[in-house]
Amino acid sequence: MTDMNVEILDSTLRDGAQGEGISFSVQDKIHICQALDDIGVTYIEAGNPGSNPKDMEFFQEMKKVPLKHSKLCAFGSTRRKDIKCPEDANLQSLLAAGTEWVVIFGKSWTFQVTDIIKTTLSENLAMIRDTCAYLCANGRNVIYDAEHFFTGYLNDSEYAMKTLEAAVEGGAKVLSLCETKGGCMIKDCEKIVSAVSKQFAGRATVGIHTHNDSGLAVANSLVAVEAGARHVQGVFLGFGERTGNANLSCIIPDLQLKMGYPCIAEEKMAELTPIAKRIAEIANIALNPQLPYVGSCAFSHKAGMHIDAVLKNPSAYEHVSPEAVGNARVFLMSEVAGRATVIEKLQKIDPSIEKTSPVVAEIMAKIKQLEFEGYQFEGADGSFELLARKMIGRYQPFFKLHYYQTNGVNPRPEEGVCACAQIKLEVDGQIEVTAGEGDGPVNALDIALRKALCRFYPAVSQIKLIDYKVRVLEGTSGTDSCVRVLIESTDGNRTWTTVGVSSDIMEASWLALCDSFEYKLIKDIEKHLLRN
Amino acid sequence: MTDMNVEILDSTLRDGAQGEGISFSVQDKIHICQALDDIGVTYIEAGNPGSNPKDMEFFQEMKKVPLKHSKLCAFGSTRRKDIKCPEDANLQSLLAAGTEWVVIFGKSWTFQVTDIIKTTLSENLAMIRDTCAYLCANGRNVIYDAEHFFTGYLNDSEYAMKTLEAAVEGGAKVLSLCETKGGCMIKDCEKIVSAVSKQFAGRATVGIHTHNDSGLAVANSLVAVEAGARHVQGVFLGFGERTGNANLSCIIPDLQLKMGYPCIAEEKMAELTPIAKRIAEIANIALNPQLPYVGSCAFSHKAGMHIDAVLKNPSAYEHVSPEAVGNARVFLMSEVAGRATVIEKLQKIDPSIEKTSPVVAEIMAKIKQLEFEGYQFEGADGSFELLARKMIGRYQPFFKLHYYQTNGVNPRPEEGVCACAQIKLEVDGQIEVTAGEGDGPVNALDIALRKALCRFYPAVSQIKLIDYKVRVLEGTSGTDSCVRVLIESTDGNRTWTTVGVSSDIMEASWLALCDSFEYKLIKDIEKHLLRN
Repeated sequence: MTDMNVEILDSTLRDGAQGEGISFSVQDKIHICQALDDIGVTYIEAGNPGSNPKDMEFFQEMKKVPLKHSKLCAFGSTRRKDIKCPEDANLQSLLAAGTEWVVIFGKSWTFQVTDIIKTTLSENLAMIRDTCAYLCANGRNVIYDAEHFFTGYLNDSEYAMKTLEAAVEGGAKVLSLCETKGGCMIKDCEKIVSAVSKQFAGRATVGIHTHNDSGLAVANSLVAVEAGARHVQGVFLGFGERTGNANLSCIIPDLQLKMGYPCIAEEKMAELTPIAKRIAEIANIALNPQLPYVGSCAFSHKAGMHIDAVLKNPSAYEHVSPEAVGNARVFLMSEVAGRATVIEKLQKIDPSIEKTSPVVAEIMAKIKQLEFEGYQFEGADGSFELLARKMIGRYQPFFKLHYYQTNGVNPRPEEGVCACAQIKLEVDGQIEVTAGEGDGPVNALDIALRKALCRFYPAVSQIKLIDYKVRVLEGTSGTDSCVRVLIESTDGNRTWTTVGVSSDIMEASWLALCDSFEYKLIKDIEKHLLRN
Repeated sequence: MTDMNVEILDSTLRDGAQGEGISFSVQDKIHICQALDDIGVTYIEAGNPGSNPKDMEFFQEMKKVPLKHSKLCAFGSTRRKDIKCPEDANLQSLLAAGTEWVVIFGKSWTFQVTDIIKTTLSENLAMIRDTCAYLCANGRNVIYDAEHFFTGYLNDSEYAMKTLEAAVEGGAKVLSLCETKGGCMIKDCEKIVSAVSKQFAGRATVGIHTHNDSGLAVANSLVAVEAGARHVQGVFLGFGERTGNANLSCIIPDLQLKMGYPCIAEEKMAELTPIAKRIAEIANIALNPQLPYVGSCAFSHKAGMHIDAVLKNPSAYEHVSPEAVGNARVFLMSEVAGRATVIEKLQKIDPSIEKTSPVVAEIMAKIKQLEFEGYQFEGADGSFELLARKMIGRYQPFFKLHYYQTNGVNPRPEEGVCACAQIKLEVDGQIEVTAGEGDGPVNALDIALRKALCRFYPAVSQIKLIDYKVRVLEGTSGTDSCVRVLIESTDGNRTWTTVGVSSDIMEASWLALCDSFEYKLIKDIEKHLLRN
């Protein structure tokens, strides 16, 4: 430990759980703790046992789960006004959680004391002091969260400082300054953290806890460290109440790779992206592709000029190497992308392909023609691979369509189904005729095709469609214009996107659907071949 | 204009279009220009006419579209090495775009000069100087984008400064410092902008252009302004290559509401959220709910304690008032959100309606319920008016549907038509049964409905559908999820948009189609009544 080391407290399971649409089961919380422990954050703030019986159950379960690197923290409030700590039920729950470290929040802003919790300024100081002292006397290490510290300091700096003194008198080891409203500008943040760091030098570690309401959560965390903070609180993926908490998957590499403040073990840096994906999966949210360092677009290049430059030297358009944070460089297919992108992708299918192979020029020409017709392969990796395989000669059709027919009706019949589809297809000379009912003709066609193929390829049942997008293409008009359909699918392990274009919305959907099913089957065969 | 005023350049249509999944038609680009002009950004950087024939077509179209507030800019590169400006095809395209303002980018980083474009340092300076001078001589105002300026300055500050001198010698009015890799830390950004501002004081306006690869695009833009920049480039919703460009919907209120730097007209601040929604809808992307200021979660409160406090005093947990940026506090939505806008629209239909009329509350409640189901009236003026008329009692249905039925088939029959629709409807007791064939079921249904109605309402034949958009709604999955269809129609004089939502894509299209036809008929009757 040098005086440059920065402690990281992850609050995915506490403040992060305040985000819209976020809800964790006890098992989810245990899995996220294990992920955070794997990457080695210093503290995991995992819940409020006093306010939430589910959190209490979680802390009991965690007594059986050993952590290798991180310290588990329970979170709670200072004692209520005008009572003693042993009488406070929340504090008893906090002790019952049995964690060595606890986080306690209290008020720093006089307005919050007098108008929101409606007590006196001196009682508020006593609440802070007593609570810290009580928890220390019970063998706990205390992190003190000074809620609304920045607003409080700007209104009455003297009182705000007194609340911190009370926490230190009570024995708090960390003073975490909370920028609760997310409205603090950079200069104010720097000035205030600097003043606190000076006043408490040698007596407590100063921490920072920010929100993103002004788009500055990361920036304020970084300037706070430069101003003396050595403890940073946030949420690994940046979700949380309103616009979210400080995004740790960005702050950790900023501090460690760019500014020279070590946060986690050096060899763990390359785990950042895998851990981000793991947490997103457990939280059941889509990982924002634009997230710095760990998002799927963080190292993606679309402009042909940028791609050429990156191939000459990655530092031309990359601020760090994607490998340093466990991510990967991606070249997007698009009208502006060049030959280099295509070659790189083709070599993954067939390593014998070279820059000068005639098939490269043929595929480039085909892509150009299809893009002119309205295809877009940038987001449609699945369809691109199928196209490339067809042209390289590494493709066998899985079935032959004889016909399909769809019917929709409005109003819905009594039974409530408004569409059906019939399909006739052939696999190895065997004919299958079947039908499906659904909510609208595309859904009915999906169901019918799935049913028909399942007889021959049971793996098709693993495919789940996760997104379906339609857009009308340029230079056309109204409902008889050309449409592009993008379908995103998953089989639980892999996610892929396919595309179809037609003047008929049904046919465009059909093309994207077929590509999706065929892509899955090709990947399964490939995996099987690799194993043998 | 005081020396605190900051110019805003929006690059949604140029750098923003480099974002994954972003693709604009010429019509989309025109609509986004109109939205940006409505809010009044100083410049709209709208495309690269030299690199892209679609962009050239757009600039030709824009000659017919007057802008009230913003200046349209075409974007391009300095001349290629070792040729003269008049010989450079890209520069000729740039001039042909016919914009008064142009943005030119050039190299500031010696590595990019010698290793990527492979020329000499002095030829690079000449390229910058010549290009600016040539454009000025052709009557253009030049904004110079110094690509990789920060990396260049940190490597060789003297040469980086020389490139800016070359631009000013050539006549550039704005020197926009581009943080192209998004890797610059706050202190470096501040130091470099400050040095440039000092050197060019009184000779050029200094600008800043940042990317979010380190999570600092907003922060670096703000510190640049504090260091002397008075021109900020970004993308309204923050999308763009890799992790995105600086998010203007956050920077504008940070600068204007928090830091005292005016960017747009004061009365336009409350348009920030509606414009953000409008741009997202045109770009066919989901507006990130966590976006500062304009996201749907920006002022949402989940914790009961926070809600109680906010009810006592909103400033307890809100850094600015949501109304200041046209957004709404989520738990108070039905009471305050858009009420004034709604009243204004209602009074256009029925001037006797007052703020206190009970129908206002009823309509607000209905909108809230429909928005919960996935409707969105922000961009669907036609459907909003029909809904309001239905609730006010100023609506008579034009027809009654008995049923419709659609059929689609693949492969197409010999005659080439792949879908047909039958329809039975009733007008004033008279039944019409007819059918239409079309390219896909939606098109067939449109044709059949039109045919059936024309007998009773010949004006229907004037309606032309100009856009048809479908999107899957959040929180649902695959082809059986809920979809929202937006249809834009025109009769040659007026343009209107209508919306339909259903789990069945056909029904959603039907709802939007009916609204479109009814809206046209209502407006015709109204015109007729006003004339008599």
